[in-house]
Amino acid sequence: MSRAISNLQIDSARLWGAIHETAKFGATAKGGVRRLTLSQEDKQVRDWFRRACEDAGLEVHVDALGSMFGLRKGRDMSKLPVGIGSHLDTQPTGGKYDGILGTLGALEVIRTLNDAGIETDAPICIANWTNEEGSRFAPAMMASAAYVGDFTVEDILSRKDADGVTVAEALDSIGYRGATKVGTQKFSSFIELHIEQGPILEAEGKTIGVVDSGQGVLWYDGKIIGFESHAGSTPMPLRRDALLTLSEIALALEKIALKLGPNAVATMGEAVIKNPSRNVIPGEIGFTMDCRSSDAAIMDAIDRELRAAAAEIAAKRKVEVTLDLVWRKPPTHFDPKLVDAVENAASALGYSHRRITSGAGHDACNLNTIMPAAMVFVPCKDGISHNELEDATQVDCAAGANVLMHTVLALAGVAS
Amino acid sequence: MSRAISNLQIDSARLWGAIHETAKFGATAKGGVRRLTLSQEDKQVRDWFRRACEDAGLEVHVDALGSMFGLRKGRDMSKLPVGIGSHLDTQPTGGKYDGILGTLGALEVIRTLNDAGIETDAPICIANWTNEEGSRFAPAMMASAAYVGDFTVEDILSRKDADGVTVAEALDSIGYRGATKVGTQKFSSFIELHIEQGPILEAEGKTIGVVDSGQGVLWYDGKIIGFESHAGSTPMPLRRDALLTLSEIALALEKIALKLGPNAVATMGEAVIKNPSRNVIPGEIGFTMDCRSSDAAIMDAIDRELRAAAAEIAAKRKVEVTLDLVWRKPPTHFDPKLVDAVENAASALGYSHRRITSGAGHDACNLNTIMPAAMVFVPCKDGISHNELEDATQVDCAAGANVLMHTVLALAGVAS
Repeated sequence: MSRAISNLQIDSARLWGAIHETAKFGATAKGGVRRLTLSQEDKQVRDWFRRACEDAGLEVHVDALGSMFGLRKGRDMSKLPVGIGSHLDTQPTGGKYDGILGTLGALEVIRTLNDAGIETDAPICIANWTNEEGSRFAPAMMASAAYVGDFTVEDILSRKDADGVTVAEALDSIGYRGATKVGTQKFSSFIELHIEQGPILEAEGKTIGVVDSGQGVLWYDGKIIGFESHAGSTPMPLRRDALLTLSEIALALEKIALKLGPNAVATMGEAVIKNPSRNVIPGEIGFTMDCRSSDAAIMDAIDRELRAAAAEIAAKRKVEVTLDLVWRKPPTHFDPKLVDAVENAASALGYSHRRITSGAGHDACNLNTIMPAAMVFVPCKDGISHNELEDATQVDCAAGANVLMHTVLALAGVAS
Repeated sequence: MSRAISNLQIDSARLWGAIHETAKFGATAKGGVRRLTLSQEDKQVRDWFRRACEDAGLEVHVDALGSMFGLRKGRDMSKLPVGIGSHLDTQPTGGKYDGILGTLGALEVIRTLNDAGIETDAPICIANWTNEEGSRFAPAMMASAAYVGDFTVEDILSRKDADGVTVAEALDSIGYRGATKVGTQKFSSFIELHIEQGPILEAEGKTIGVVDSGQGVLWYDGKIIGFESHAGSTPMPLRRDALLTLSEIALALEKIALKLGPNAVATMGEAVIKNPSRNVIPGEIGFTMDCRSSDAAIMDAIDRELRAAAAEIAAKRKVEVTLDLVWRKPPTHFDPKLVDAVENAASALGYSHRRITSGAGHDACNLNTIMPAAMVFVPCKDGISHNELEDATQVDCAAGANVLMHTVLALAGVAS
């Protein structure tokens, strides 16, 4: 590789500008982004992204679940493209970087290669995966999961949001139910750039996280059925209070995660009382839980201990508790050769780095089940993510995109 | 009093028919009633009630907060009327008897006196008080509270429901903002018939509860501000989880009520996570609490211990907890002469009875602060109320209405 190429750097200001220009689609008053998947705001950013890809000379196509692909030809079109990208949807009160850095970082890699007139041997394909966040439709990362065959496309299209709108209807409403069959766009490998969403890189003063593993995930839908009755005239010992039951389950879950930690986290993220009233004892509550570990044995222990605790609490409070495991994703172990490639790129560029486990789930974890995949992390401020206060520096974002670019160059090869 | 009058009985089948006829306004699939105050369903039952009052020869007028009054003339119109009645609104998933028995029981008393051709010395006025339940607009019993001067009418008219609709707008939307100034309709005394909403009469096999006191009430609006962050990548010890904080407060409240009981109950009835998502640690929760005792010293102890517990939990979890006492109603001690009158009527009719404390708040508790008031309770099945399963027998409802009628006859006097 020539010295000009080995020294090639992405355009930090252009990447930073793209991140902040698209942050206006769903911008919140507190500086974050609310861009739920397949919403009107998501359509706005998708339209922007499509134009940017076309302007960069990419061949854009959209698959039946709305995932967007932009192909840059290589010299040898018999080779599969190297895939890079992430997602552009956000949490209900999310930040400007989660997913967005990886997608616009991929775009920036293409723009930089174009400017430098570099042709790669294998093609490169950038991707924006539909519904990574999972906050409007469950499960999260549904499009990449369908891509790898974990769900059928029909199943995913029929999933409903809280208002009863299906994925199919949402795709049609913004004009992003594409013509390409899911899975048609193949990759030789996939690299995803992302903010860490945790506190480790920042605490250790490292610029690049070379992600070698990802936590497995357990998602539960739960329901408690107690008994609604009058808050003034029902003696305490006769109550079958759904909210007190929920409270005990939430605290039991925390205790289990602390006991099995540090390689375990668990969260009750949603809880909705049915027909709430301030002078009625809550009779029914629906809730969700999210539990993670990068160790499959710990995941099994969480499931076992959680079910035992819920059963004991239900019996004590004379209420009915049901726990449905709606999603179980095993821990991810990224492809060793790709992880090495990321590490080599970081070393060659002189960035401080360390191997790291991803606390969050990512599309790359799904893709890793059928192709070599890996990830590049950069620090985020105070480890905060899924929050309007999510922040990262321009220097770190650029460093991540540089590592992404040089990993891609190593994998795709430069046409001589 | 003549033997014909002392033996007079209300028409049990007619009362039962009225209860079940009006239950269609807001009927739920499970046999309950959803008739939130000032809703279209409330308008339907109000229209029915107005016509029934007019058919019974009553002079109907509506005050500026929508409370409805039906006046039956007495021989001596210089005397203030004896008031009877209750309310026709229900909880979001309420029953067919709470409030309704007392209002339609009052109507049945008038119909029976009409049929028997009995003129009373003092007039009788039946009432349907607006928003007793408080589940759409806070506080509960707002119309009778404004009637006795606890709130200004302007204040109550400006209260908003969860959708931002004011009481004034809701009254106008169903045409029940009446011309009568609140407080114009005076009473010499007020008797309210109601289901017990608790398990005591049924458990002891008593037909009539002679209500001599009512619990005081503390209503709190609470807010917890923790920190939203990623459920997968935020280590357990670094979390500031609003839902775990809520859980500890809910369980602390239960513990306080149990410790100070049996003359104390406490309930967290509402809790809403802001921007909930299954993979985001809850950052903010609003909640409400309802605490009651018939002993003012116990009410003070609940307030003190609750605030101490909330402060300790907030400090431990590094979150902010605010508790606003939005309503404090002192315990009620009903007028001893009126309580005796109810007891005498129950005895004369041969019904088994006992003195009892009301666990729930009632409009009669408000009225008791400016005039002699009392209440008559009848059993309800399993003590269940504020629930679609709320039930009572025709025989017990009729017994309650008979006690109401004979108490009224004793207070109003029969014209000779």
